[in-house]
Amino acid sequence: MKPFRIAIAGLGTVGAGVVETLQTNAELITARAGRPIEIAAICDRDQDSDRGVDLSGYEWAGDAHGLCDMDGLDAIVELIGGSEGIAYDLAKAALGKGVSIVTANKALLAHHGLELAALAEKNGAKLGYEAAVAGGIPIIKALREGLAGNEISCIYGILNGTCNYILTEMRETGADFDDVLKEAQEKGYAEADPSFDVDGVDTAHKLCLLTSLAFGVKPDFKALSTKGIREITIADIKAAGGFGCKIKLLGIAKRQGGKISQSVEPCLVPVESALGGVEDSYNAVFVEGNFVEKVLMTGRGAGRKPTASAVVADIIDLAKGLDEPVFGVRTDKLAEPVWADTGDIKSRYYIRDGESTQITGEMGQGELEALTDKLDSPYTMRVEDL
Amino acid sequence: MKPFRIAIAGLGTVGAGVVETLQTNAELITARAGRPIEIAAICDRDQDSDRGVDLSGYEWAGDAHGLCDMDGLDAIVELIGGSEGIAYDLAKAALGKGVSIVTANKALLAHHGLELAALAEKNGAKLGYEAAVAGGIPIIKALREGLAGNEISCIYGILNGTCNYILTEMRETGADFDDVLKEAQEKGYAEADPSFDVDGVDTAHKLCLLTSLAFGVKPDFKALSTKGIREITIADIKAAGGFGCKIKLLGIAKRQGGKISQSVEPCLVPVESALGGVEDSYNAVFVEGNFVEKVLMTGRGAGRKPTASAVVADIIDLAKGLDEPVFGVRTDKLAEPVWADTGDIKSRYYIRDGESTQITGEMGQGELEALTDKLDSPYTMRVEDL
Repeated sequence: MKPFRIAIAGLGTVGAGVVETLQTNAELITARAGRPIEIAAICDRDQDSDRGVDLSGYEWAGDAHGLCDMDGLDAIVELIGGSEGIAYDLAKAALGKGVSIVTANKALLAHHGLELAALAEKNGAKLGYEAAVAGGIPIIKALREGLAGNEISCIYGILNGTCNYILTEMRETGADFDDVLKEAQEKGYAEADPSFDVDGVDTAHKLCLLTSLAFGVKPDFKALSTKGIREITIADIKAAGGFGCKIKLLGIAKRQGGKISQSVEPCLVPVESALGGVEDSYNAVFVEGNFVEKVLMTGRGAGRKPTASAVVADIIDLAKGLDEPVFGVRTDKLAEPVWADTGDIKSRYYIRDGESTQITGEMGQGELEALTDKLDSPYTMRVEDL
Repeated sequence: MKPFRIAIAGLGTVGAGVVETLQTNAELITARAGRPIEIAAICDRDQDSDRGVDLSGYEWAGDAHGLCDMDGLDAIVELIGGSEGIAYDLAKAALGKGVSIVTANKALLAHHGLELAALAEKNGAKLGYEAAVAGGIPIIKALREGLAGNEISCIYGILNGTCNYILTEMRETGADFDDVLKEAQEKGYAEADPSFDVDGVDTAHKLCLLTSLAFGVKPDFKALSTKGIREITIADIKAAGGFGCKIKLLGIAKRQGGKISQSVEPCLVPVESALGGVEDSYNAVFVEGNFVEKVLMTGRGAGRKPTASAVVADIIDLAKGLDEPVFGVRTDKLAEPVWADTGDIKSRYYIRDGESTQITGEMGQGELEALTDKLDSPYTMRVEDL
């Protein structure tokens, strides 16, 4: 069989992991894809670093843009990152020329997913992004195909391993946010600039893709309200424990009566609930559909190997000729989302004010504000009874 | 777009659920499949019962065999059940004529999967069986596609909802196996003849399909050692709790050094482990791969709606023209499995002898036998530290 020829643009952690996967599991990948996967070119500004994988057999491309014009290339694996700049230009150019893209780049897709999907459709190219959400967990495929018979009513995701690691460490060691973050940075679990992770932006990028897939609407990153975990104190974590809960940074998307809400925020979830047991850097996605009922998928949400697993799954799908609409339905069938008025959504709330903490009964945003207006320095989190 | 025309053979619980799904979610299913799914015929010996779904618009076929010769039929949804008889004859005849089959029938595939897969390949037909394993959980798709880049090292599954329900009830109520089984039968959670469930046969059917998919080997139901849950006493359940464990009926498949072991047996698993939290009639599959690391999928493993969800996912895949090898690779690429000598596999064991219970250190089967030979009436279970 004719090999499926790819170029890999970006040889950081994940890029090197993809090469390692394709080398290590070459035989079984060939059998499952029905044809060999051939790395026709690799590309990175840094051609010298030791990445723990043998790159000697591959041709280095001078610059990423040139890859679009390589003869006989079936797909470009974009692992450069960032929502703008090279990654965006490369994806646009490749898809415009009918060359498929596989990417782990959630920022790119959250900002430009609709445009890129339309471009792919127009030019007969494909756009795979399993690795962009929840690392090794095949959640894109599950939503787009495995659960395709369902009207999805809600998704709850622990989508950022760094945040889950920090919150788990805080609970287990009693250390403050700042100390745990610093330690995580030293260990390489958190970036030098951690704001994408701890401020919820990364989770928001991922959630807006899940919202689109689950509900068949255009992805809309701007419509997402995002709150991170910086303000969470040890006192909150202990109080949550006293209420039988843990604190998790959740991406939540729900549909009720045709209206959709999506938010990223730290929430209290019962220790015994589906997401209460998801610890350390693990990710998890909980989905409810009108026929499948409740499904939970848990696994490694980041890291060289798990992310490479998802990238390679996409490559194999493309090599087999799989032709799936990027967001589950053709872009011209994606609806404009109708957003719910978040003030209408009732919830129980955790409130900390100075030394005192409480969990309220079910109330809307208005009631909550009336309550917290009377307090000195209130910090609130939603309680999600999964 | 031309509709995808199916016939549904067998209108029991799942068959009626499939009709209900296709009716209830018609609009979104059409969008996701890219074309309407049309029920061209239905077939069941009983044409009179109220199934809680409107069948008035469909054509009744006189007998299932005739469906193979219907003009312009794209797929037959076989929901008759049983490994032999009508289900087998129908699948063989349909695939032989190039008509695709979607089925929830694990017994059929465990016994005849290889033959049917080869027949499908030869005649350009497809064979979908997502619903045959773990109900609504898209585990077939996950193993075949989502984790396709991995060499899988092990699978642990809670694959039978009836057994998990019985074991959970026993633990929670302190009632004996026989009493809980009787109650489950009265509630309709267990069959009048429960042996397929409680003796592990149903789990074995499912496991042999997962083994094939995960390891790229021919499915071999006969090579499976199977032990059910009838002998488990309340004393075992209490003792397990004392050891920090719960008892779960597991389907286990492992590969080490090229050799595969597969077994169905009740095991002790730590309460805090991935499978320890899977209760009631929920199913779960835990998979470890050399890149994805650990993935856990949990959901409803049976019932009208969750099973229908999986059947409809397969129908949508076929309507989209998806062409996946039945067992992950083409049948001529499936290897003959090399079975591990189970005596070599080391494990910790739970041993009950009269009133006394213990958990041993790690040992092989020979050592265990030497130990239990000295006891009066030993009952043993493996301890699986997931």
